[in-house]
Amino acid sequence: MSVSQLTQAERDAALAELDGWSLRGDGKAIECGFEFDDFVDAFGFMTRVAILAQSQDHHPEWFNVYNKVEITLTTHDADGLSQRDVKLAKAIDKLV
Amino acid sequence: MSVSQLTQAERDAALAELDGWSLRGDGKAIECGFEFDDFVDAFGFMTRVAILAQSQDHHPEWFNVYNKVEITLTTHDADGLSQRDVKLAKAIDKLV
Repeated sequence: MSVSQLTQAERDAALAELDGWSLRGDGKAIECGFEFDDFVDAFGFMTRVAILAQSQDHHPEWFNVYNKVEITLTTHDADGLSQRDVKLAKAIDKLV
Repeated sequence: MSVSQLTQAERDAALAELDGWSLRGDGKAIECGFEFDDFVDAFGFMTRVAILAQSQDHHPEWFNVYNKVEITLTTHDADGLSQRDVKLAKAIDKLV
């Protein structure tokens, strides 16, 4: 299934709706950092995101160390940001 | 609880026993990449590692994208590698 890259206007509108996400330097991804009380809380969050991601068939690039999680969303098929990223980011925002 | 850095001899001995782990450029961490069939397999592995890590009270720095997981182990309290890293790496090796 092909997916198209967001226009700049769509990108700006999406970022305005998201909580704490920012555009990566190259404009092809959005990123957000999350901080929790400890590892169990952080990994619990990751587990919820993993289930969301799998259900949306769209997966994050993410890094964890102890209580911190950094998530990057991009759409390789679009070589940049697409509505899939915005949809997943919004769902992640609802978890926290 | 204080923990001491491995000597070079201990480090070499540990690396020889581990499967696929290599020393990071600065010598202060060991790293290993894992590849799975898909995201569910990769995250399943991460969940098992998370439980191991929590039980050992020693946590990885790790990155995941889809079916790939990259794990870095280091001991901040020792400012380098310690037996805690070796113990966790061996336990991870047993999972795969």
